[in-house]
Amino acid sequence: MGRWQPGAQGRLQHAAMELFGERGYDRVTVAEIADRAGLTERTFFRHFADKREVLFAGQDDFHAVILEALDAAPPELGALPAVVLGLEATGRWLDDERRPHSRARQEVIDAHPELQERELIKLARAGTAMAEVLRGRGVPDGEAVLAADVGVAAYRLAFARWVLDDEHDLPWHLRAAVEVLRAVVA
Amino acid sequence: MGRWQPGAQGRLQHAAMELFGERGYDRVTVAEIADRAGLTERTFFRHFADKREVLFAGQDDFHAVILEALDAAPPELGALPAVVLGLEATGRWLDDERRPHSRARQEVIDAHPELQERELIKLARAGTAMAEVLRGRGVPDGEAVLAADVGVAAYRLAFARWVLDDEHDLPWHLRAAVEVLRAVVA
Repeated sequence: MGRWQPGAQGRLQHAAMELFGERGYDRVTVAEIADRAGLTERTFFRHFADKREVLFAGQDDFHAVILEALDAAPPELGALPAVVLGLEATGRWLDDERRPHSRARQEVIDAHPELQERELIKLARAGTAMAEVLRGRGVPDGEAVLAADVGVAAYRLAFARWVLDDEHDLPWHLRAAVEVLRAVVA
Repeated sequence: MGRWQPGAQGRLQHAAMELFGERGYDRVTVAEIADRAGLTERTFFRHFADKREVLFAGQDDFHAVILEALDAAPPELGALPAVVLGLEATGRWLDDERRPHSRARQEVIDAHPELQERELIKLARAGTAMAEVLRGRGVPDGEAVLAADVGVAAYRLAFARWVLDDEHDLPWHLRAAVEVLRAVVA
């Protein structure tokens, strides 16, 4: 989910999203993606393990951005506000310019249960890592786990709404989702 | 996760958990499970697609119990209390008698990331199904999704604590987790 790279990886991702949009994810081959990007299959496989991974590259960056922001949260901040601060940081690159790509990517994912599972696992791993950081900040285990998990739940809702909306940014949707969360749990 | 059946499926599950405990999940073959249960491999494969599925059989029952209880919740009940009522219903068969099996199963799952993912997906699917029932009860989409997802998050924490505890039952742990959730979100 990193910003378009000027290099081979970014060109391959861009070509892949174009082709998925034109023909559907299932009908596109790695050879076609490489061809559209003006690169070889061999180059493709230097950057991605398979076609699916084109959609999930940048996962480590995604986690790093969240965890860095969470780690830098003021110590007096509560567990959930700290988690929200961490998740909000992804809005720095998931911005207006990025939204059309995120929307196209989400359409592919929504149409494929196995990709939904992959996305779910990615977010759950971010949750596990955030809970670990919270425990390091002295948050008791149960609170740490729940703050991270409900933060991820709010993020999923916010992300789903952000990709379909041209008005508000991702942090705005995240704050709105946390308000819904507060109403639901109250 | 169904109660021990007197029939072949229950015998196979029981034999599998014994063998997993003795040798570790990775070192046990389907042939050995069938042998321990006094059955053939062919019978094994009539009940389970593979070794992994021994741990996840009964998933449809698990969903059905939750959704039935949620569906029967009084209409005036809020979204999260209704979800909790649904999840609590699993305590009817995840009881004291069942706990040693659940604990052994959880130890296997905790030691294998791919099984953790399978379990995560199972619970996420229960969440998706609960959100659908909530929408059918007139709960707006965002609230429905978040009530179901945070209910699942509380259930995961409650389940993890219940398998390690000989004192309180699963509904007790679920209510305790919801209290932690309230404190985290407040």
